[in-house]
Amino acid sequence: MTDAYSTLSPSPRLLLGPGPSEIAPRVLRACATPLLGYLDPEYITLMDETQTLLRYVFHTDNEWTMCVPGTGMAGMEAALINAFEPGEDVVVCVSGVFGERMVDVARRAGARVTRVDAEWGTAVQPEQVAEALRGVKAKVVAIVHAETSTGVLQPLEGIGRIVHEAGALLLVDCVTSLGGMPVDVDERGIDIAYSGTQKCIGAPPSLAPLTMSAAAVEAFQARKTPVQSFYLDAGQIWRYWGPERAYHQTGMINMLYALREALVIIKEEGLEARYARHLRNQRALIAGLEAMGLRPAVEDAAIRLPSLTTVMVPEGASDKAVRDGLLTKYGIEIGGGLGKYAGKAWRIGLMGYASQRSNVMLLLSALGDLLTNERVDEGLAAASGVYAA
Amino acid sequence: MTDAYSTLSPSPRLLLGPGPSEIAPRVLRACATPLLGYLDPEYITLMDETQTLLRYVFHTDNEWTMCVPGTGMAGMEAALINAFEPGEDVVVCVSGVFGERMVDVARRAGARVTRVDAEWGTAVQPEQVAEALRGVKAKVVAIVHAETSTGVLQPLEGIGRIVHEAGALLLVDCVTSLGGMPVDVDERGIDIAYSGTQKCIGAPPSLAPLTMSAAAVEAFQARKTPVQSFYLDAGQIWRYWGPERAYHQTGMINMLYALREALVIIKEEGLEARYARHLRNQRALIAGLEAMGLRPAVEDAAIRLPSLTTVMVPEGASDKAVRDGLLTKYGIEIGGGLGKYAGKAWRIGLMGYASQRSNVMLLLSALGDLLTNERVDEGLAAASGVYAA
Repeated sequence: MTDAYSTLSPSPRLLLGPGPSEIAPRVLRACATPLLGYLDPEYITLMDETQTLLRYVFHTDNEWTMCVPGTGMAGMEAALINAFEPGEDVVVCVSGVFGERMVDVARRAGARVTRVDAEWGTAVQPEQVAEALRGVKAKVVAIVHAETSTGVLQPLEGIGRIVHEAGALLLVDCVTSLGGMPVDVDERGIDIAYSGTQKCIGAPPSLAPLTMSAAAVEAFQARKTPVQSFYLDAGQIWRYWGPERAYHQTGMINMLYALREALVIIKEEGLEARYARHLRNQRALIAGLEAMGLRPAVEDAAIRLPSLTTVMVPEGASDKAVRDGLLTKYGIEIGGGLGKYAGKAWRIGLMGYASQRSNVMLLLSALGDLLTNERVDEGLAAASGVYAA
Repeated sequence: MTDAYSTLSPSPRLLLGPGPSEIAPRVLRACATPLLGYLDPEYITLMDETQTLLRYVFHTDNEWTMCVPGTGMAGMEAALINAFEPGEDVVVCVSGVFGERMVDVARRAGARVTRVDAEWGTAVQPEQVAEALRGVKAKVVAIVHAETSTGVLQPLEGIGRIVHEAGALLLVDCVTSLGGMPVDVDERGIDIAYSGTQKCIGAPPSLAPLTMSAAAVEAFQARKTPVQSFYLDAGQIWRYWGPERAYHQTGMINMLYALREALVIIKEEGLEARYARHLRNQRALIAGLEAMGLRPAVEDAAIRLPSLTTVMVPEGASDKAVRDGLLTKYGIEIGGGLGKYAGKAWRIGLMGYASQRSNVMLLLSALGDLLTNERVDEGLAAASGVYAA
């Protein structure tokens, strides 16, 4: 490497992968706003507004609603390690890579983990959770709402009741769902939910929204042992986000600016309109892909994620050649498969700002070109049909 | 709170506190650059360049040089928990709030901590470290290079040798020193060093540069237990920053853009010129304050931090009234005292882009106004004298 560094000028990209996703120009501009100090009264007001807006997207009245200073993975780890103490039992539902991650994170922190497994491409059934809870006195049941590795939307109906009847807390990963589909924290009896900023929220990766119910806070405050981490200790983070306003870590000023701006945009659009937009664009994409002869990885249409579509790499096509072609010829990024889907499936994100009709149509035509798919006209017509309906 | 959110338009601030500090316009613009994916070949190149530039500012050839995805506090926690296993002995030098934090973090992670204490406003003596190491077989000795709570620059001369002779690793907090004064990781035998981006580096808060010597990596790889945290596991972070380029967490794209830009600026200025600039402005500030009758909290001029000056609140003045006046009348933020210095000292940062003559002169005159100090002319003349010398 030479001593000369070129001007920062990345090639234009259309981010249609599993995240980060496209950012609205308003949100990008917010990133470049000169800094306030992290205890400046004006900054505290921006934190308060962000908190109120997060309660809106989480659909919760939870007082303890804050941002963990890190990416969605930091949110996962904070949610777990604050929810149990070493040696306690935790039930983790696993139907993809992020469920596996939860197992890893929980074990490192000293949990005794009971797994509830579902096949890739399917969802965990409430009865499986009930069965697991008959065998173990769990402190927490953890489940992924939107499994980014498989494209499955995990139904949460009925799970809260089962978990609460067993005296456990329900912990839900909403990284790929928050802001793109209903999360309904309070209505579903979710005790701990976390997310990331770079998916359906439409901000850069950096912060992890976290919310905890009164029951979760009560359990947290009754801990006999300190949380293993100072950085991810929810009580410490709350000292900064709550009324005390004590120093825990230096706030990520510019990233909070961006998150607040992205949340204001969500508020302006309205959650219902936003959810409908995500769903409509996903349906158009899938209609187009299917008309071109491609097969979604998730067979049951009822549990396909509005924000992330997994589709099998068609026979005879090269996973990597197509993704490279999309990037170099079109500037489009989609995701490769993770885990069991590595080399076998693509992951197409239509998240937040990226969930737009023009992106769907462009991607279908670009895939048609790179796959030399002879039915691309049918694909485009099928997608258009969804918008016309 | 109403439903209407105002346009993001924070009041102008001159950040002369303990961080975040001023950001160059180029760095702010970099924050607003459209995103690449976190595995995009162009992004990987930017990571490589950032890594090379970090080695330059750390003065190291360490292969394992990376960014922990969080603020300086995440860097502290990552540095510690990767350096020892539960039950092992750790010596922590404590002369202020950040040494205390290290004790807390290490204990939470299961270390048996031996403290080496120094009075606030003074540095730890090498002989104290040697004495502690005669009493305990330590895996790690941790010390803060630039104690942001006291304004003390901890001399590191001789400590590396003492630590290595005892078979331990030397771990150094460089949060407030990196980029503003020599850190000299290799020459001083530092095994693990971490920093933050929002102080002398001149980027927004978000990432924590971390570097580990071959000996530290070897000790890490010989661990018998997994690191308690997945998010802060140096091996996992290295899988992303090293040749494997595996997914660990979603890169903080915009914050890496900003960090790279800030490091390019450092490279353009040159480290020696940058260190000299920090020192010159600090000397001018102190000359001015002393000429106005104010007293630096650190009596020994040889161990005053070039980047952060602690000064005692003069008798008869109200800590809070002066800081509020600076903020509201001048838009200037300085820091209040932390810990034992709460209400008793101010913390004035001249870090990175903020370390400028005009800022020194403005702050002296603003303090003169708010303190109704009759010697402000003498203060300004004394500061000017430093620049003229």
